[in-house]
Order: sequence, then C-alpha cells, then structure tokens
Amino acid sequence: MSAPARTPEPPYYAVIFTSTRTDVEEGYAAMADLMASLGSQQPGFLGLETARGEDGLGITVSYWESEEAIANWKRNVDHRGAQAKGRSTWYSEFVTRVAKVERAYGFVKPAPHA
Amino acid sequence: MSAPARTPEPPYYAVIFTSTRTDVEEGYAAMADLMASLGSQQPGFLGLETARGEDGLGITVSYWESEEAIANWKRNVDHRGAQAKGRSTWYSEFVTRVAKVERAYGFVKPAPHA
Repeated sequence: MSAPARTPEPPYYAVIFTSTRTDVEEGYAAMADLMASLGSQQPGFLGLETARGEDGLGITVSYWESEEAIANWKRNVDHRGAQAKGRSTWYSEFVTRVAKVERAYGFVKPAPHA
Repeated sequence: MSAPARTPEPPYYAVIFTSTRTDVEEGYAAMADLMASLGSQQPGFLGLETARGEDGLGITVSYWESEEAIANWKRNVDHRGAQAKGRSTWYSEFVTRVAKVERAYGFVKPAPHA
C-alpha cells in the first residue's frame, strides 16, 4: 500500500507497532501477510499503514473503531500460537502502543490538468 | 534511528504523520533534518520514529508529554513559512493524526552470551 489510510472522522483508535528485525527471513513474509489479511477481515478494522526503512526500523499502524475491536483482534491473533512463538525469532525489538486518535487533518495534491 | 523510541509509561501523546512523496528532492532532506532537530529540542519531546518503504509510503511518529507540547511545537513550525509552502512540493498526500497513547508494551531480545 502506498497511500495513507482513509479513516473516518475521529475519535477512533490506532495500534502503533514499531520494530527492528532480526536477519531471520524464514516464515516472516507469510506471517506478515497473514496478520494483514486477518486484520482487515476483523470487525471494526479501519485501515493499515506500514513502512520499513533501509536502517531496519519498521512502523505499522492499524486503525480501529473501538478498543473492543482491538481486544477481539488481539484474541484472534493470540489463538494462533505461531505468532507469539515467532516474535523472538523475527524481531530483535518491538513496542506496541495503543492510542486514541483525537484529531486528524490531511492534504491531497490536486491532480494536474490534462 | 533504527530502534523503537524509549518512551515513559503512558499516558503521553503521539503525532502520526503518514505521507507519500512527490519526486521533488530539492530541499526535502534539509527540511526533514530541520524538523527532526527542532522537534527534539522542543520542551515535552519524548522521541521520534521514522520509516519510508520502497513503495513510497512514509510514517513518522513523534511522541510528546502533553497536548500543550504539541501545540507549542506546531506554533514553532508554523513560524517557519518554508514548511507550509513546501508541503505541496514534497508531498502528494499526507495525513497527520494526534493520538493519546493509553498503553504500551514491548520486547527486547536478550543479547547472546559471549
């Protein structure tokens, strides 16, 4: 995805997941795809933004209607034991922050005239 | 920076800036460095995380002690006319979201034994 998520008017919730990767590639891409896919099917899911720079720092922000939607999503993920098991393999460090989005504003460059 | 920001116990605030770039490079790196430098000198600044992926989506999250600290920072930035002027040059799209971090948890991989 290459554009900011289209989210409704605040308030809503953001889960900010910041991480540095180990050099273990095995299973990582499949897990990341599965997480994105499961998340987007979850009730209350509003959008996802993800970026990883050349220095290895990655930031993934998912947006949710409510805290309840986040709790349900977390429960769903926890049921897949693979994720917890794999974290220490794929990540050397991570922080998850749950935050309530209180206001938002943006800009979209107008398309040039044809 | 290649590691998640070291932030205190919540609550604190996050400003999530998600953007897609135009192909205009002129002045961009200098502005980005200036913004990071000014921000980190601002009272109430707690940390910064930034990543831009190969698809062009960039995410920068700055962390702040209070809404007042964010308001002061924004005022400081607004005084530099260059920023507002340059936004439509450097960015094809962006969204800024201000959020209150309510809880956080993390993981750091233990260093291997020597």
